[in-house]
Amino acid sequence: MNFIDIIKKKRSGLELTDGEIDFLINGVTSASIPDYQLSAFLMAVCFNSMTAKETAKLTDAMAKSGDILDLSVFGALSADKHSTGGVGDKTTLIVAPIAASLGCKIAKMSGRALGHTGGTVDKLESIPGYKSELTPIEFINQVKDINLAVVGQSGLLAPADKALYALRDVTGTVESPPLIASSIMSKKLAAGAHNIVLDVKVGSGAFMHDIESAKELADMMCDIGKRCGRNVRAALTDMDTPLGYAIGNVLEVKEAIEVLGGRGPDDLREVSITLAGMLVASVRGVSDSEGIELAREALASGTAYKKFVDWIEHQGGDIRYITAPDMFGKATTVLQVVAECDGYIQSLNTELIGLSSTRLGAGRVDKKSKIDPLAGIILKKKTGEKVYPGEIIAELHSSTPELVAEACEIFKSSITYSDSVPERRPLIFEII
Amino acid sequence: MNFIDIIKKKRSGLELTDGEIDFLINGVTSASIPDYQLSAFLMAVCFNSMTAKETAKLTDAMAKSGDILDLSVFGALSADKHSTGGVGDKTTLIVAPIAASLGCKIAKMSGRALGHTGGTVDKLESIPGYKSELTPIEFINQVKDINLAVVGQSGLLAPADKALYALRDVTGTVESPPLIASSIMSKKLAAGAHNIVLDVKVGSGAFMHDIESAKELADMMCDIGKRCGRNVRAALTDMDTPLGYAIGNVLEVKEAIEVLGGRGPDDLREVSITLAGMLVASVRGVSDSEGIELAREALASGTAYKKFVDWIEHQGGDIRYITAPDMFGKATTVLQVVAECDGYIQSLNTELIGLSSTRLGAGRVDKKSKIDPLAGIILKKKTGEKVYPGEIIAELHSSTPELVAEACEIFKSSITYSDSVPERRPLIFEII
Repeated sequence: MNFIDIIKKKRSGLELTDGEIDFLINGVTSASIPDYQLSAFLMAVCFNSMTAKETAKLTDAMAKSGDILDLSVFGALSADKHSTGGVGDKTTLIVAPIAASLGCKIAKMSGRALGHTGGTVDKLESIPGYKSELTPIEFINQVKDINLAVVGQSGLLAPADKALYALRDVTGTVESPPLIASSIMSKKLAAGAHNIVLDVKVGSGAFMHDIESAKELADMMCDIGKRCGRNVRAALTDMDTPLGYAIGNVLEVKEAIEVLGGRGPDDLREVSITLAGMLVASVRGVSDSEGIELAREALASGTAYKKFVDWIEHQGGDIRYITAPDMFGKATTVLQVVAECDGYIQSLNTELIGLSSTRLGAGRVDKKSKIDPLAGIILKKKTGEKVYPGEIIAELHSSTPELVAEACEIFKSSITYSDSVPERRPLIFEII
Repeated sequence: MNFIDIIKKKRSGLELTDGEIDFLINGVTSASIPDYQLSAFLMAVCFNSMTAKETAKLTDAMAKSGDILDLSVFGALSADKHSTGGVGDKTTLIVAPIAASLGCKIAKMSGRALGHTGGTVDKLESIPGYKSELTPIEFINQVKDINLAVVGQSGLLAPADKALYALRDVTGTVESPPLIASSIMSKKLAAGAHNIVLDVKVGSGAFMHDIESAKELADMMCDIGKRCGRNVRAALTDMDTPLGYAIGNVLEVKEAIEVLGGRGPDDLREVSITLAGMLVASVRGVSDSEGIELAREALASGTAYKKFVDWIEHQGGDIRYITAPDMFGKATTVLQVVAECDGYIQSLNTELIGLSSTRLGAGRVDKKSKIDPLAGIILKKKTGEKVYPGEIIAELHSSTPELVAEACEIFKSSITYSDSVPERRPLIFEII
């Protein structure tokens, strides 16, 4: 087999065989296909797309290019939740204990912050003592014991995806539905869960800016899951404005604890209950509405909160910080951003807010950046709210005073004002 | 400027600015843009093409990426002829002396054989003594003296094209009209002539297999010439069957001498007269039909033949071989290929015939191959002719007996027979 022929075949719009896709992914994994041929192939895919069959095969081959987490001991009870990435998205901290308290087996590997989006592992590590590295045996045993463990990504998960993604990033070939879907799903397949709920974010802070393309991506990922023998569901949720009011590691953990305690912002609670309910529905074989009702009860009754405390304690976290979140302390510099005119907040560019938070120290500019756990943003107003000149819109927190001015500029550029009340967007667009 | 943005712009189907194309070609020439980005860009061009303006700018930038031959001393009299490549195509040996005898200034750099096509320089070097390397001053002075000099390509002509072509060859991005047109024309622009006649071959032995795509390419190259201030014309000529009966260096030189002497095959003479006539029309400002008439007379009167002898003598060739071509001698092995059935020759796959000739030693399998000047093929029958079983179709000539069997197999596979007289194709499809 010759890769030039495979490029030409894709260029001509023909469907690749399973053997040709295996040849591609073996060539990526062993680095035997040169990058300049891969990038030409990727660009041809951007134009001619891939069939559902090709996409599923590509995903499966990428998943099998490295380690695969074996969760077979949990059978059809294993469950995982994945977000396509947002700002202020701390739902895993809430969804995981709700679902675990209702019998889902959550053996989860989570990512770290990069660019404008946060990472669950960084958030968890802001709780003193939390161990995000467990041995495989500790990890599985903890899930057996309490239904829940969350660790950082270890091992070599889907290395072919990693190599292809790095190349796509520098060759203008990121935006391609089958490439995006297979990239996400290859890692999820390798992470081993049978039931997967995808939170596909839509809006200015998400990878998908409009509902049509988000739905196309979600449908594609569910189809891949089905073809690969997994039970995959998806919810399209709004990321045109940050979820909740807190952005930044400690700030988000505190907000999650509020929701788990029965308080906190409505949008964050509703999205979390929906995603947890879908997981419960999948694992228990009940309807979505029944699953969501069970999730709502688990939150209201405090069983989800108890599961959260149990989880953090099992992974070494100091639970005094959970019961008394003031112990986290506060960043040394807090700058208030005030409204510059009279009107309604027409929109908050969520990507810019994420970048502002990263600049404050809450995220990573590159892979070597060190996280400031106390840094971040507390919004005081969100899209659609009325503001008066001088009214506080947000607080910027940082332990590095010299970063705050630039972060403030970025934050201010994220806001647009309007004279009239802007149209309200739904929080959850669709459940698939 | 960032090349990823340029890739994305082309991917979106937008027109690149002159500055962006300069950035591309500077990046190719200095090797500062990595191959994997260039190949993604090239694939995007395969899908979204380039506008006439972009194509002309790309060509101009590639031409200027290296040395440019300065023929300004000849003003509007400088003239060049270029073939897109064929089998048995020895027209330059005939066209150049006809045009030079009628006042065209032909300062020509020609290529060498590669793959299934021959090269003019190899043919000329089969004449003992012929020097295909002249100093720039010798080269220009010879054209001043006798209107004609033909040398091998020297200097660094369009190095950006060379680098891009090498990459296209291994990334499935060769077939793209603007890339093909700019590749050919960048070298022609760098070769300096004001008047250029392109012989765009069509058929099984040509790069372009059908008339529509050949015409598109020809139109595009003429347009590039116009936008770059040159006078470019094109003829679409048949390459579904070899031109003339001889393929191979000495064999072709001998056939060209026959045509210059007023004999030889009709198809070769007619194509040569047409191309020479177009050059004369361009340089003298007369109509094509007048130019063609002048060319016909120059051939008939023997002035073209005299110019040929003069040219070969000036470049050191032993003209006794011209006046007595039998001096060239003959290959040690000659195998006769005979018809295997009763019928008409329906088609001769010209590319396979070229490959058969290369196998016999007449061409180069790779750049280091050594040419056998006496090797090649003499056709005894061509497309449309009636054959009887056992009748000789061709003679295969080689100095290496062990190569002949394989070459014979290739040759035989080029022939298809038919019971009825096949439709006759025109020799010259169109003049542009």
